[in-house]
Amino acid sequence: MQIAMIQDKVVPMEELEPAYLDRGIFFGDGVYEVVRSYDGKIFTLEEHMQRFANSLAAIEITSVDIDQIRSQVHKAFGAAGISNAKIYFHITRGSAPRNHLGNANLKPNFFLTVTESDDDTEAKTKGIAVSTHPDWRWKRCDIKSLNLLANVLARQDAAKKGCAEAILVDENGLITEGAASAFFAISERTLQTAPLTANILPSITRKFVIKAGENIGLEIIKKTLTPQQASCSDELFIASTTNDIVPVVRFDHKLIGDGKPGKYTKLLAQKFRSFTV
Amino acid sequence: MQIAMIQDKVVPMEELEPAYLDRGIFFGDGVYEVVRSYDGKIFTLEEHMQRFANSLAAIEITSVDIDQIRSQVHKAFGAAGISNAKIYFHITRGSAPRNHLGNANLKPNFFLTVTESDDDTEAKTKGIAVSTHPDWRWKRCDIKSLNLLANVLARQDAAKKGCAEAILVDENGLITEGAASAFFAISERTLQTAPLTANILPSITRKFVIKAGENIGLEIIKKTLTPQQASCSDELFIASTTNDIVPVVRFDHKLIGDGKPGKYTKLLAQKFRSFTV
Repeated sequence: MQIAMIQDKVVPMEELEPAYLDRGIFFGDGVYEVVRSYDGKIFTLEEHMQRFANSLAAIEITSVDIDQIRSQVHKAFGAAGISNAKIYFHITRGSAPRNHLGNANLKPNFFLTVTESDDDTEAKTKGIAVSTHPDWRWKRCDIKSLNLLANVLARQDAAKKGCAEAILVDENGLITEGAASAFFAISERTLQTAPLTANILPSITRKFVIKAGENIGLEIIKKTLTPQQASCSDELFIASTTNDIVPVVRFDHKLIGDGKPGKYTKLLAQKFRSFTV
Repeated sequence: MQIAMIQDKVVPMEELEPAYLDRGIFFGDGVYEVVRSYDGKIFTLEEHMQRFANSLAAIEITSVDIDQIRSQVHKAFGAAGISNAKIYFHITRGSAPRNHLGNANLKPNFFLTVTESDDDTEAKTKGIAVSTHPDWRWKRCDIKSLNLLANVLARQDAAKKGCAEAILVDENGLITEGAASAFFAISERTLQTAPLTANILPSITRKFVIKAGENIGLEIIKKTLTPQQASCSDELFIASTTNDIVPVVRFDHKLIGDGKPGKYTKLLAQKFRSFTV
């Protein structure tokens, strides 16, 4: 008899909930997005839906109706009634007994959560410390997939060092991005971040940070930094959907500027917030 | 109200089954093993338990009692009563609302299935075709983790080309291993496979294939091959726990030998089987 075991309990295979046979858990065979709302309004939902469609296409999950997913996001956001919300959703290729090759007729699984936004006010006011970690991720970080163990391990390592984020450094000694954020440096009125040609996620927040930078008159340089260059910058910050702009005041053992959030970082954060209203 | 949505159904967060909040699905934050039995006897269980313990340690899931896991494997195998069985099991860091940084107090989730071994007799008799694919995997393939999307995509690509396995080629143009197998070439009485220093899984089947090679008098070379070298070999085969040795008779567009399983490959398969009784 084909059986499963959940913790120490034997379950006949045919009584198993589909969640246990999700290809998301066996292979990370799925893609996800995170959007957030500011005061009851979801920010850049269309950009996220477009990226989600791109991720689905890249891994060839083809039977998803993006318009229906958009409706479900709106329905869930409405049902939750949280005005500053974080909305996470993923789609996996479906549930089936484990086999690398997924059956083309599988029904994709959709899962979503709406929770309070975890905007970290203290981090934004005081800034955070970050530490470098080798970039162990796969070579398709342009796809927002559920394969995130390298990111988890880097973040675990950072936490052990008392840091809030890990900054990933590739085998050429160049910074790609944070474990769950884009990474930016400011020096002498230039704003620098890795180009999208690097093995990084096409961050939507990054796009609006660059727009904010242009608006306040910074020169934009899309070029990878070394940790050495980063640690000698006037200002550093990370950017992500959930926390927008968070100043970085320590990079490994090096204090950045005077150890307080930088002037331009604060200006950028203000400008960025003006886009969200 | 914090909510979840499963397919198009809204569910209050507190009513959500833990399976939906498994870090295995959010991040692939877990490790796995596959063992098989031949005629009622599990082959090399100790080697697999040791590798499983190594994988758990590498991602710092620390609260698992390996002796208890071994007992559960035996219990499940006994309950299933399948004499030629494939036993899959994984442990994830646990279930919790999504956050890259896992809480150290999470209770790990154990999941296992016992199914009939899917020994592919036709593939073994006739041999299979394989196709090359860029190795997109992460840089810690020595850890047997649930981050397997690169493997799935490579296998999907192979299937489209009418091939049963994808052979992964790294950015230096060298073959690492198959999407779900180790890869071997035979030429002039030498058996060649990638060294464990490459970004590959320390395959237990590989170890016993090498032992079989020594037993039948082949010289063993642990050195990575290029696709060009592989396609000019006398014989090729892949090896994995679930299917032990499967001859490769076509490599991309190139027929290997006379397009039939090679002499030494067959000898190796016989010798390998003698280890399993």
